[in-house]
Amino acid sequence: MDSVYQHVLAWRQALEEAGISLSVWRIHRRVGMSGGLFLNALLRETRNRVDPGEALRLQHLHEEAYARLAGQVRPLPGARELLAHLSGAGVPWAIATSGRLASAAPTLEALGVGPKTPVVTRDQVRHAKPDPDLFLAAAGRLGVPIDEAIVVGDSVWDLLAARRARALGVGLLSGGYGQDELERAGAYRVYEDPADLLRHLDEVGVRIADPKRVGRERRRARSGRRAEDAGAAPPK
Amino acid sequence: MDSVYQHVLAWRQALEEAGISLSVWRIHRRVGMSGGLFLNALLRETRNRVDPGEALRLQHLHEEAYARLAGQVRPLPGARELLAHLSGAGVPWAIATSGRLASAAPTLEALGVGPKTPVVTRDQVRHAKPDPDLFLAAAGRLGVPIDEAIVVGDSVWDLLAARRARALGVGLLSGGYGQDELERAGAYRVYEDPADLLRHLDEVGVRIADPKRVGRERRRARSGRRAEDAGAAPPK
Repeated sequence: MDSVYQHVLAWRQALEEAGISLSVWRIHRRVGMSGGLFLNALLRETRNRVDPGEALRLQHLHEEAYARLAGQVRPLPGARELLAHLSGAGVPWAIATSGRLASAAPTLEALGVGPKTPVVTRDQVRHAKPDPDLFLAAAGRLGVPIDEAIVVGDSVWDLLAARRARALGVGLLSGGYGQDELERAGAYRVYEDPADLLRHLDEVGVRIADPKRVGRERRRARSGRRAEDAGAAPPK
Repeated sequence: MDSVYQHVLAWRQALEEAGISLSVWRIHRRVGMSGGLFLNALLRETRNRVDPGEALRLQHLHEEAYARLAGQVRPLPGARELLAHLSGAGVPWAIATSGRLASAAPTLEALGVGPKTPVVTRDQVRHAKPDPDLFLAAAGRLGVPIDEAIVVGDSVWDLLAARRARALGVGLLSGGYGQDELERAGAYRVYEDPADLLRHLDEVGVRIADPKRVGRERRRARSGRRAEDAGAAPPK
C-alpha cells in the first residue's frame, strides 16, 4: 500500500499534540519499525523521554491521526496484479505487516487478499521489524524454508529484518528511500514499485511453475499423496 | 523550513482532485523543482497529458491544499540560529526559493528574516530549479561571485542547480533524500539539518571573519570608502 507518507504525517501530528517537535524526515526514516522501537529511537535522538503510559497515548494519537488520512491511501501500482500473478503461477505468498490486524483489514481488502491468504500482523509475534519474527512466522505459515523465501519491502527496516531472518530481501522505492539506502540495508535488487517488480520477476529468481503441473500436484496433494514443493521460489 | 512532506501531500491531493493517481514517493522525488517542470515530469512518467490550463488549475489546487497544511510547518532545527550566526559573523547570505513571494512571506517571518535580507523568489527569475537562475540572482544581489558562494539545499534539484551555477553545493537530509542521492547530485558535504551544519561550518570553508573587523569595515563602507570583501566565504 502507498501509505508511508500518511503514516509519517500522522506520527508528526501525534507528536505535536504531545508537545514533541521533531523534523518530518526523521519520522520518515523510522516508519516501518515497530511502534515501540520507533518512539524509543526518535525520542532518544531528540533527548525527549516518555514513560510507557505516554508512549501508549502517542500510539493512540497516531492511530487517530492516521484514520483521518486513511481515505487517501491507495494500493501501489501493480500490487494487486503482482499478487494475482503469483497466485496464478502457483508461487506461495503471504502478507507480513508491523501493523495490527484491526488496521490491516482495509488494506487487505484493497489488495484483493482473500481469507485463505496467510497474514501475519504485529499482534501475532513478539517483536516487529527490524526483528525477523514477522517474516519467520510468514514462512512458517507457508511451510517454506525461510532461506528459500523472498521478502519484498520498501523500508530499510524490512530489509534488515529480512537479513536477520536469512531471507533474500528485495527493495521497492515506494517507501521514499533511495536505491542506495535500500541496497546498503541488504536489498538484492531494487525496483520502483510492485508493477516494476512484476516486470522483472525472473531477476529475483522466481521460477514460475507450469500452472497445469501445479494444478495436478494440488489435486494429488488433496487426494492424500505428498505434493512436490511446486510453488516455492528458491533464488538460485 | 520543514515543509517538504506537506508539499508532497498537497500535490498528491491536487492530483487526486484532478483525477490523476500518482504514487506519493514519485511526487516526493520531484518537490523543489519548478512547478511547471514538476508537472511535466510527473505526468510524462505516468503518461498523463495535461494542457496548460489544466496545469495552472493543478498549481492552484496545490496552493489551496498546501494552505490547509501550512499550519503544521515549522522552521528546521537550527535554521534561525544558523542565519543569525552568519549575520553576526559578517558572512553575507540570501534566501532563494522556487516558491512565489506571496507564499514565502510566512516562511521568512518564521525564520526571523528581516526586510534587509536579499530574497529571490520564483517571480523574479525566468526558470526555477534545477536551472541555476535563482542562485545566480541571489549571488548577484549579494555582490558575491557565484563560484565563491555556497548553496545549501535539501533536494537533488537544489544541488543540480548549484552545480549548473558553479557554486559549491551543501546538502541537508531534511528533504527526505538519502545522503548518497544528495552526494551523487553534487553535494560537497551532507548534514542532517541547519543545526548540524552550524556545528560543522568550518568543514564547508566558512571562514568566520573577526566581528570587530567586519563592524569597522561596514562603518568604513557606509562612510564612502570601499570595504574589503569581508564576509564572503570562499571555500578553499
